[in-house]
Amino acid sequence: MSTRRLTLSTIDGVPLVRPGDDVTAILLDALKVSGDALADGDILVVAQKIFSKAQDRYAKLSDVVPSPRAQKLGLEIDKDPRIVELILSEANEIVRYRPGVLIVEHKLGFVMANAGIDASNVAEDGDEDDRVLLLPINPDGDCARMRAEIRERAGVDVAVIMNDSVGRAWRSGTVGIAIGVAGLPAILDLRGEHDMFGRPLKTSIVGIADEIAAAASVLQGQADEGAPAVVIRGYAVEGEPTTAQALVRDKSEDLFR
Amino acid sequence: MSTRRLTLSTIDGVPLVRPGDDVTAILLDALKVSGDALADGDILVVAQKIFSKAQDRYAKLSDVVPSPRAQKLGLEIDKDPRIVELILSEANEIVRYRPGVLIVEHKLGFVMANAGIDASNVAEDGDEDDRVLLLPINPDGDCARMRAEIRERAGVDVAVIMNDSVGRAWRSGTVGIAIGVAGLPAILDLRGEHDMFGRPLKTSIVGIADEIAAAASVLQGQADEGAPAVVIRGYAVEGEPTTAQALVRDKSEDLFR
Repeated sequence: MSTRRLTLSTIDGVPLVRPGDDVTAILLDALKVSGDALADGDILVVAQKIFSKAQDRYAKLSDVVPSPRAQKLGLEIDKDPRIVELILSEANEIVRYRPGVLIVEHKLGFVMANAGIDASNVAEDGDEDDRVLLLPINPDGDCARMRAEIRERAGVDVAVIMNDSVGRAWRSGTVGIAIGVAGLPAILDLRGEHDMFGRPLKTSIVGIADEIAAAASVLQGQADEGAPAVVIRGYAVEGEPTTAQALVRDKSEDLFR
Repeated sequence: MSTRRLTLSTIDGVPLVRPGDDVTAILLDALKVSGDALADGDILVVAQKIFSKAQDRYAKLSDVVPSPRAQKLGLEIDKDPRIVELILSEANEIVRYRPGVLIVEHKLGFVMANAGIDASNVAEDGDEDDRVLLLPINPDGDCARMRAEIRERAGVDVAVIMNDSVGRAWRSGTVGIAIGVAGLPAILDLRGEHDMFGRPLKTSIVGIADEIAAAASVLQGQADEGAPAVVIRGYAVEGEPTTAQALVRDKSEDLFR
């Protein structure tokens, strides 16, 4: 293997995604308009947010009736009990909480603050903004479907990663991670491989899909411009493809629950 | 801001680094030999390992006398008590342990397994391989020095990140992180900025230097080829530069100690 150069490019001109939209068609159209195209071996990294919007994973806060448990916890951590209710309904279990922070294991297995719910577009009042956005129900399935659609419609074989930004236990700031993967191994298991001296490698299991998701996140930016999709060219995909579930640490090995 | 394309390229032909070597000279020479050069605004990401080697941060296991505490802990977690001794001597405190795993807060403030000590080149026996490699004492200072040397010798203004690969609390596989930073903000603080609808951003503090470190790690690879340094072009550095210490979560906000 000799991957020597990677290029990362945003897909520009992606319009606002609305419930029911065909995200694959939107991305392929945007590429065409800007004179670009996907090629075999590319990795397409797409932000969770536009999958969630297309799938109408909005929840209306005024429709949420918080349980007594959510009311009590909301009071304790100073968080809207309706949002707490949604977080709990998206979660397998609570991992930690303190004022303003609620960290759970999402039903998908990922440990995340607020179950990955995006409440940033909740305005002070008004019907229009009474909404939050939940994660897709099956990100791995979404990636597999997009990969198949791209093969069918554009005739190219690409890998697809759905990424989101999450906080870390001991480090400030969020980083991009992979919550859905199709067409490449989410983990590189190098156990048994050797360094240039023929000695066993120190770092033998690499969270490669998370590294790729973080790389795309650098370019996706967080602010005004909104670049939900990034094409990565030059990565030599090797090994058996897996889903993003390969990145979930087994509970038996988890020291931080 | 409109960063639309990033290119990441390995610096090829970097020779083995030995104690006393001038890493900046080695990298600039390797670039010259391959007909490349750094440009203003580039980000140079360099693996911790070659800084440590140049600084002779080797420790000889046969020289290590484990304390009673290290002996007891080594027995309990089934780890060479001499390595446990080195880990403890590099650490502020133990965060968690279990058989085979010792997670500490390194003196640099980073929470890492084994205090970032690389024991992969410890052979079964023999003097030559009786060594492990510790982290540099001052990675931020090393990055600042390299940045100044590059400005002086090559006349260009680049940012420098020292990266290492670490495990995560809840996810399998290691990812690259920044343990030293010079010339760019390690954190993007977007609080107060807004999305394309004029609403406050969900993700407002981004660990951008960690994302860049992870991106470089994709290309550095882990195996035979050994690509210790990567040049990233196209990232629009904005904001006040910080050290990597900006990435250390304050203990008062840390729920996982």
